[in-house]
Amino acid sequence: MTEFIPAGSRFLDLPSPFPMKRGGALLGARMAYEIWGTPNAAGDNAILILTGLSPDAHAASHADNMDPGWWEAMLGPGKSIDTDRWYVICVNSLGSCKGSTGPASIDPATGRTYRLGFPDLSVEDCADAAAHVIVSLGIERLACVIGNSMGGMVALSLLQRFPGIAHGHINISGAARALPFSIAIRSLQREAIRLDPQWNNGDYTDEAYPEAGMRMARKLGVITYRSALEWDGRFGRVRLDSDRRLGDDPFGLEFEVENYLEGHARRFVRRFDPNSYLYLSRSMDWFDLGESCHGTCEQGLSKLRVNRALSIGVHTDILFPIQQQQEIADGLLAGGVDAHCLALPSPQGHDAFLVDFARFGPAVHEFLDSL
Amino acid sequence: MTEFIPAGSRFLDLPSPFPMKRGGALLGARMAYEIWGTPNAAGDNAILILTGLSPDAHAASHADNMDPGWWEAMLGPGKSIDTDRWYVICVNSLGSCKGSTGPASIDPATGRTYRLGFPDLSVEDCADAAAHVIVSLGIERLACVIGNSMGGMVALSLLQRFPGIAHGHINISGAARALPFSIAIRSLQREAIRLDPQWNNGDYTDEAYPEAGMRMARKLGVITYRSALEWDGRFGRVRLDSDRRLGDDPFGLEFEVENYLEGHARRFVRRFDPNSYLYLSRSMDWFDLGESCHGTCEQGLSKLRVNRALSIGVHTDILFPIQQQQEIADGLLAGGVDAHCLALPSPQGHDAFLVDFARFGPAVHEFLDSL
Repeated sequence: MTEFIPAGSRFLDLPSPFPMKRGGALLGARMAYEIWGTPNAAGDNAILILTGLSPDAHAASHADNMDPGWWEAMLGPGKSIDTDRWYVICVNSLGSCKGSTGPASIDPATGRTYRLGFPDLSVEDCADAAAHVIVSLGIERLACVIGNSMGGMVALSLLQRFPGIAHGHINISGAARALPFSIAIRSLQREAIRLDPQWNNGDYTDEAYPEAGMRMARKLGVITYRSALEWDGRFGRVRLDSDRRLGDDPFGLEFEVENYLEGHARRFVRRFDPNSYLYLSRSMDWFDLGESCHGTCEQGLSKLRVNRALSIGVHTDILFPIQQQQEIADGLLAGGVDAHCLALPSPQGHDAFLVDFARFGPAVHEFLDSL
Repeated sequence: MTEFIPAGSRFLDLPSPFPMKRGGALLGARMAYEIWGTPNAAGDNAILILTGLSPDAHAASHADNMDPGWWEAMLGPGKSIDTDRWYVICVNSLGSCKGSTGPASIDPATGRTYRLGFPDLSVEDCADAAAHVIVSLGIERLACVIGNSMGGMVALSLLQRFPGIAHGHINISGAARALPFSIAIRSLQREAIRLDPQWNNGDYTDEAYPEAGMRMARKLGVITYRSALEWDGRFGRVRLDSDRRLGDDPFGLEFEVENYLEGHARRFVRRFDPNSYLYLSRSMDWFDLGESCHGTCEQGLSKLRVNRALSIGVHTDILFPIQQQQEIADGLLAGGVDAHCLALPSPQGHDAFLVDFARFGPAVHEFLDSL
């Protein structure tokens, strides 16, 4: 199996065995992470960034890897997350295929790729593994934990499982529990992969790879990551030039929006491990901060011990709708946290935090500045 | 190929050849339709119903077929569309597989199933074929044409191509043009079918049938036909009982919402012809009332000659969003039609007209009563 590890990655060996919430344990597992900036003398300037499902830990360029990262516009000297001031750590999620141990890694017990032998992965496991990175770096308390999308779930779980681990929290387009519309979307993405005969119950190879399933999963993802409003303005009913259409296939690409999806699928399909995708996707469906504390979601939120929190969402997000960011702020507030929800008018839907830096940049900067 | 023709269907032979808008012509084609009620002496009580993509013409029970129809609650004696007063005709769309000629029909030129040899199908062709049914029944002018979803597109095309064919018009969850979000969804549904190896470029059999592709297409359809709001209340995070889960598949059904999608897929998969699905789906992407008249969508709407019109939509519809029903009313109004848009607070999304009879019933009844 191919893993996709950015140059300049750092690694932490997790305790072995590393117990998993739903049973089983990992042996010799590791976490990939990257860092920017320098810890200060008081030890109170550390920020942890937790990512969405697919990104690696390379959030921005640094001396060991000058390639632009997925949050390049947000993170760096003088930027919204100012690395002249903050000591920033981004981790690749446990279960991913981009440096941290996941289904595409070798199981030391067998010497073979885990594949479906990887134990059930939960958001809580991702939080536990991220906490080990923080502790290993000698950080006693984070100034802030920032979680985007799935990372927003991991961040809430981290706060639940490690009370007091952070002073501040920014939850971006995240959720305290998975709701049925997003469960349905993710279930269908997983079904697309599993129905591909080349998935072969997880035993695919680079030569016989579930490309059709991954294409479908990615395209469905992109549809739910953006918004109808953005696409009306961006694509409308514009057709592809005839020389960019694919041969004489009667059902081939015709509209620009179809070409856009096709481009996204092509860039993704061979760059993410299908089994890893299945595990990470399912972990989100399972997540409910309330279930984790045998109560309601609001009760789970009200018990989190963090001093200040900002949850940010956008009105056009259909996958993690704004009501879910409002729920986070309301729940934290009910527990006495100085929390509020910022609803941005970005047209780009769930992915707005990856593109609408004009809105997200100042919002994040202002909150960090006030800590 | 299997066609799925309701008992008690009536048939009209279309003129042969029947020319198609984008080229080619059908030989010996026919339309399936059903009727309720009786024409009055003045000949001014006829209502035409145009359906969404998948329904047949059996909108409600009648003497020749007492099975409940897909709009049973709306149509019948004393109901919102009162068959004691109105003479109602519902047609199965050209290109469908439920009685009217489509890709699953026999091409008389070859004696074999059309499959992908069926000519390009457009919404305009569906309108032309429906008009022939009306004319053949001796109807000079419809009291009202009612179109739901795709049928809303066909209704607008009918009004465009046959000025004065109807006095009134109800457009339910329809659109005057396809926009990129819905094009993307439909394109992905078609891709799911086409990627299924059993689709075999349209040459499938009942034994080797593109079941996986049709499952995906249907599940994606159902996700976009309903709404997150409805599902939050209806399913929440409720799990299936363990005895209803499918074996020990680690990625099998777990949540009620997944079971709901599974049930929809099972009921649909072998009941609709995959090639017919592809043709009807693509016809919607192509539809733009503006392009049809070489102008803007608003210009196309403002040229329609109908006396009174009501467009109805719901706030939770993500496939044909309420802005599109507002666009229809605004465009008709700009052309001097007594038109307005009714936005209903139904939680059920695009499919609300098939379930929220408490809201749709009175709205439709009141409009018809005022004609």
